[in-house]
Amino acid sequence: MRNSTRGVVDPFIVMDVMEAAAKAESAGRHIIHMEVGQPGTPAPRGATDALAAQMQEAQLGYTVALGLPALRSRIAQLYKDWYGVDLDPARVVITPGSSGAFILAFTALFDAGARVGIGAPGYPSYRQILKALNLIPVEIEATAENRLQPSAAQLDGLDLDGLMVASPANPSGTMLDLPTMTGLMEACAATNTAFISDEIYHGVEYEAKAVTALQVSDQCYVINSFSKYFSMTGWRVGWMVVPPDHVRIVERLAQNMFICAPHAAQVTALAAMECEDELQSNMAVYKANRQLMLDGLPKAGFDKIAPPDGAFYIYADVSQYTDNSLEFCAQILQEAGVAVTPGLDFDTRRGHQTIRFSYARSTEDIREGLARLTRFMAPRLR
Amino acid sequence: MRNSTRGVVDPFIVMDVMEAAAKAESAGRHIIHMEVGQPGTPAPRGATDALAAQMQEAQLGYTVALGLPALRSRIAQLYKDWYGVDLDPARVVITPGSSGAFILAFTALFDAGARVGIGAPGYPSYRQILKALNLIPVEIEATAENRLQPSAAQLDGLDLDGLMVASPANPSGTMLDLPTMTGLMEACAATNTAFISDEIYHGVEYEAKAVTALQVSDQCYVINSFSKYFSMTGWRVGWMVVPPDHVRIVERLAQNMFICAPHAAQVTALAAMECEDELQSNMAVYKANRQLMLDGLPKAGFDKIAPPDGAFYIYADVSQYTDNSLEFCAQILQEAGVAVTPGLDFDTRRGHQTIRFSYARSTEDIREGLARLTRFMAPRLR
Repeated sequence: MRNSTRGVVDPFIVMDVMEAAAKAESAGRHIIHMEVGQPGTPAPRGATDALAAQMQEAQLGYTVALGLPALRSRIAQLYKDWYGVDLDPARVVITPGSSGAFILAFTALFDAGARVGIGAPGYPSYRQILKALNLIPVEIEATAENRLQPSAAQLDGLDLDGLMVASPANPSGTMLDLPTMTGLMEACAATNTAFISDEIYHGVEYEAKAVTALQVSDQCYVINSFSKYFSMTGWRVGWMVVPPDHVRIVERLAQNMFICAPHAAQVTALAAMECEDELQSNMAVYKANRQLMLDGLPKAGFDKIAPPDGAFYIYADVSQYTDNSLEFCAQILQEAGVAVTPGLDFDTRRGHQTIRFSYARSTEDIREGLARLTRFMAPRLR
Repeated sequence: MRNSTRGVVDPFIVMDVMEAAAKAESAGRHIIHMEVGQPGTPAPRGATDALAAQMQEAQLGYTVALGLPALRSRIAQLYKDWYGVDLDPARVVITPGSSGAFILAFTALFDAGARVGIGAPGYPSYRQILKALNLIPVEIEATAENRLQPSAAQLDGLDLDGLMVASPANPSGTMLDLPTMTGLMEACAATNTAFISDEIYHGVEYEAKAVTALQVSDQCYVINSFSKYFSMTGWRVGWMVVPPDHVRIVERLAQNMFICAPHAAQVTALAAMECEDELQSNMAVYKANRQLMLDGLPKAGFDKIAPPDGAFYIYADVSQYTDNSLEFCAQILQEAGVAVTPGLDFDTRRGHQTIRFSYARSTEDIREGLARLTRFMAPRLR
């Protein structure tokens, strides 16, 4: 049977790593997982308890397309609490994860053939979703001097219809500060380039609060999710804030493309927003893990790393050790029993010389993983 | 801020009806809801109990993109039980509702500009999702003689890249029998036209078992959902069966576009498949409601109706009463206190003279609704 050109997208390399790790485990080996991009914790207990109670009483049928009004209001309140931004709840769209938000944003903003800038390194699905929607991903190669984030100067001559940024970013964990975010948004506004800010790792930050694009202007799409800080990956619920005159466009698209985000997940998410104690105890684990990584990785020989302002990743330049990150990661898995992700998922050109470490799991695992990595690297440092 | 052309899709008219009904209710009126397209029942109790138990134990993080292996196997078993079809579970893809399945199918099969045939009348979102993905919906005007379903003879000269059928259909409830399904699939195979069968109302059938396209050939996409027979609309979980050589294509798209269907919904769906008693008691209500409608509607004056083989809708030709179904429905709501849907959602050209009744709610409501409709129509029958 026929298939399309746009539908043939690249596989996630991290999936192959996970499969190799699972194979090693089923052969009896003990593997430390530094490849996975999700918290090891479930949704907060208060949140699942709230859903359990609702299931006794409510039908949990379709919600309206934009989502439960109470959840939209509570999210607007979050912008006041976290950033001091006044946000009209009418501009908040509940989505089936940030994935659903990407699809809505890209179809609402761009026609086939439009050019959308994304940073490299960056989340691999940006590229693939853009391609599947007949859009052209334009990779902007970020430099260490710019904290692995795109800069306004780089936009010149790219003829972009849209720009998507992520702060904190995956895989680097670096953030855009307010002047840099402002510069990028102004450059886009001047050229009628739609600006999309992926803020999925907000809340998971260490030295300073992340900046939301809404602090700069209403003329942007902001995408977020309950997957990371709220520890609800598998629930598939996120949100998007759009300019006032885009609400109806997005609402109609959402009605048709998704009907609504999962009702049960919306109920759970609303309750999760009141579980600050449990969420902060998750954060304490990430903080401890991050400190261990920042101490341990350079000692092990991974000393060219981006400053991890947020998220739970560290991106390392390993060019002094390899030109083949795939093989290098396979070796680390094989010899050290630690699963890590080759950079090729995130940067198709330069990812041969980079790898990503995740520290989302338990502190005990991080300690053991660092010990293994140190032993693995020792002969390479002589 | 800029927006796209493809993203400007039509609103659902039924949403306006629901809003008008809600407004009447908040003004103190009692409204009978024959407009809504979802069961009034929650997920089966055994299913929500299973989720409550899982929430105590499991993290419910991401599943693999294709879905929980146990759920995929159980669905394959359903094809054996319901149709006598042997199905490899590897071909079953768990999706975020049938909505997610449409997006995956359309991107996997068609590039921008492709022409996809859909029946008119038909589910309005087909048109809108196709448009949002830069595809061209080609409406095939179905006739009463062909039970409001497209016929193979109508495909000639349409130059289609794909054909989407629905059986039982929304809004008509009519089904394709095996010879008709076979004829359509053979006509498509002969012209390299991808064949997609929307089987979301399977299980909700009255006189005969619905036919699955998989009884005819493996060379098709079959889309189904837990929303209707399994009474899980708001959970956003469905499935799709694809040809063996399409599994990897769809898997990669699903990894990138959705990551996975909601984990909690997958757990609930698996348990729902063992709740046959509760599901059959829902069916007993639909059966009773349908019989009341088939007796009552013609008596009230709605005598040009399609044979409702399945689903929980009756589509009526009201051309003897109006050329403006929008106004007619507004009148029914206003004067009779019954919310019904104008046909324009389903058939852009001929829907001015049709309306859709839903009988998914309680039998008591159906009785009262019919009484009100009969009183409303009485002066018009003289």
